[in-house]
Amino acid sequence: MNNRLFTFAGGNVGPWEVTSQLAVVGEALKNVSRVNLIAGSASILSDWELRGVTSNERYVTRMEKSKLVSIQEGLGRDSSTCAALIPIRKTPEWWALTQEERREIFEGTSTHIQIGLKYLPGVARRLHHCRDIGTKEPFDFLTWFEFAPDLCSAFDELVASLRATEEWNYIDREVDIRLERNPT
Amino acid sequence: MNNRLFTFAGGNVGPWEVTSQLAVVGEALKNVSRVNLIAGSASILSDWELRGVTSNERYVTRMEKSKLVSIQEGLGRDSSTCAALIPIRKTPEWWALTQEERREIFEGTSTHIQIGLKYLPGVARRLHHCRDIGTKEPFDFLTWFEFAPDLCSAFDELVASLRATEEWNYIDREVDIRLERNPT
Repeated sequence: MNNRLFTFAGGNVGPWEVTSQLAVVGEALKNVSRVNLIAGSASILSDWELRGVTSNERYVTRMEKSKLVSIQEGLGRDSSTCAALIPIRKTPEWWALTQEERREIFEGTSTHIQIGLKYLPGVARRLHHCRDIGTKEPFDFLTWFEFAPDLCSAFDELVASLRATEEWNYIDREVDIRLERNPT
Repeated sequence: MNNRLFTFAGGNVGPWEVTSQLAVVGEALKNVSRVNLIAGSASILSDWELRGVTSNERYVTRMEKSKLVSIQEGLGRDSSTCAALIPIRKTPEWWALTQEERREIFEGTSTHIQIGLKYLPGVARRLHHCRDIGTKEPFDFLTWFEFAPDLCSAFDELVASLRATEEWNYIDREVDIRLERNPT
């Protein structure tokens, strides 16, 4: 098992309670009441399982990477009782672009990294890649965000900013799942 | 199953007969007499199975991509009775570099694409990525090459050129397997 593999299992068990679930673009995911985040490949009872691996960065420059690393905080903070799981799929047109063309859209015109930086360290984030794993996955990326309840509206703003970018024209499926857990 | 997933199964069955098998850097792979190239995930009797997916290009510019696409030919040509399977793994240092730093080493100083272009269309090539698949794979990339017997020494030259580059300093495991099949 790849030790960077994670599974998000949607069903009626798990520490994260779903507070809203919305199909933003394309086909919906079956509504669930809880989500479990599992290291490795899940084989638990669930309505759906989404798998992805964390990987090396694809777009950041050295300066952007240093800045991100110096500011960002990890998952699992006590105060982070709110979360979002946003699975997205990009179009075949996106994947036919070259690296430099994708970078130009990603940061040159869409300022994806700059937008994200504004919400650090409050919003912690982990990106999972699903396009190149061996199983047939319905999405290309699963992004998991964790934040404190007072950042809910800031998070809405972050997501709205990204959805207004040129990059989002290349997204043909997106689901937005918001979650809460009990304070530890 | 991801339809870009392929398995190379080493054992004593399959159309490709191993003519040499060499551990270039790092740990060897168990010697086998034949290799089978299977679409999807194999569950056949074998000594080892290496899995990878074809994916979008990571380094080529638009100009390089257009040039490659216009010249290269596909696998399975009748005349291509020789093949090579070269699995490699890159170091953690490589994966900690940013995209632009990797591109600079890959093409800026190592001219990986330029070297490869010299041997087109004679040497056909398919690259499989294994780093981000869900199973734990011993290599990061599997490259499969097919060519006619009269290109064997040209292929040796191609491989020697690549091994002399700066990029190859970031490779900590490499196996070189040469194969032949009967003419169709």
